[in-house]
Amino acid sequence: MRLRNKPWAKDKLAAYPQYVIANPEECKGKWHTIFNNQQPIYIEVGTGKGQFITGMAKAHPSINFIGIELQESVIVSALDLAIEADISNLKLMNVKAEGLLNFFEEGEVDRVYLNFSDPWPKKRHAKRRLTFRTFLEMYENILVDQGEIHFKTDNRGLFESSLMSFSDYGMLLTYVSLDLHKSDFKGNIMTEYEEKFSKLGHPIYRSESRFKTK
Amino acid sequence: MRLRNKPWAKDKLAAYPQYVIANPEECKGKWHTIFNNQQPIYIEVGTGKGQFITGMAKAHPSINFIGIELQESVIVSALDLAIEADISNLKLMNVKAEGLLNFFEEGEVDRVYLNFSDPWPKKRHAKRRLTFRTFLEMYENILVDQGEIHFKTDNRGLFESSLMSFSDYGMLLTYVSLDLHKSDFKGNIMTEYEEKFSKLGHPIYRSESRFKTK
Repeated sequence: MRLRNKPWAKDKLAAYPQYVIANPEECKGKWHTIFNNQQPIYIEVGTGKGQFITGMAKAHPSINFIGIELQESVIVSALDLAIEADISNLKLMNVKAEGLLNFFEEGEVDRVYLNFSDPWPKKRHAKRRLTFRTFLEMYENILVDQGEIHFKTDNRGLFESSLMSFSDYGMLLTYVSLDLHKSDFKGNIMTEYEEKFSKLGHPIYRSESRFKTK
Repeated sequence: MRLRNKPWAKDKLAAYPQYVIANPEECKGKWHTIFNNQQPIYIEVGTGKGQFITGMAKAHPSINFIGIELQESVIVSALDLAIEADISNLKLMNVKAEGLLNFFEEGEVDRVYLNFSDPWPKKRHAKRRLTFRTFLEMYENILVDQGEIHFKTDNRGLFESSLMSFSDYGMLLTYVSLDLHKSDFKGNIMTEYEEKFSKLGHPIYRSESRFKTK
């Protein structure tokens, strides 16, 4: 994503603590208190401009959603959508995916969403892909027993390597679509990328994969 | 495949016992004797008109290949290619895939190829797909330890369900291509179907999956 410099983003994020978590490390193990309910917690790692996570939060009020995005200038758009939606089951965190273990207790998360993650196509950058083994280890740690990763991308190479990575990690592949918009999958919420690239005729790949019993 | 009636096919198959195995049940456990060497044995289940298996046998003289095809009127074309190729590392069998355990001893086969298998798209026909659990059980039985299935198709639904079937069976997915002809895979031998459908712009899906240690 091309990043625009938005010098005001930091201040805006700080101005909405009801949506943007100011002190992520202090939330570890306390998310049900923060949401003030016992609903399941679904997180999106790399939430971008927030269309998916906001759409999901509106469509599923009985689930708590947390969108994680490193780029200030991008997550500020997600904040705009959250403010507009005016809902209590959505939080945003302006943090790195690498720090997940600092923000969530073991088993505190019920599902992980990965949507249109950076493909890092070069082999020497494979470790940066959000479906690389080291990330799967983190997701497994913070997820409940037999927790699931729901993953969408239009990037062929990323999808291919991710399926192999899930399999190599011992995960069970419970859903695969190689052309989501031509499938009978119900309730799809599109990301900004997905709208753009599916209009160009790219097939959208989608998988659900499940960790083994801990 | 549309089948043409070829009343002469049966006689022609019988006339070439050096290529077409006349007594498959009697070969069980004796394939290395039949080939008269200790080379690995790769089989293709559903060999069709034989372009793939003949091409592979020509390209890999240090491997023994066996093509299995139920339809007399189809396998007779594979026989023509075998006669033309004039090679000793290729045999054909006019038998049902369901009977594999009658033709091969446990661990006698080194690899299974499935190419453009009948997709059986209706859910109630899922059991007939050559990647259905019951077929995987048979392949696992006749394959060596950690044996592999190499699978190609242009059928999206079949590829999706097959990936899930491999995973559900506990197999390891070691290779996935979602557009084989645009990938850097080397040494691909095309089937008749593959030539036809890739010319129409269909992506060709390909996977390699490995059974666990017995």
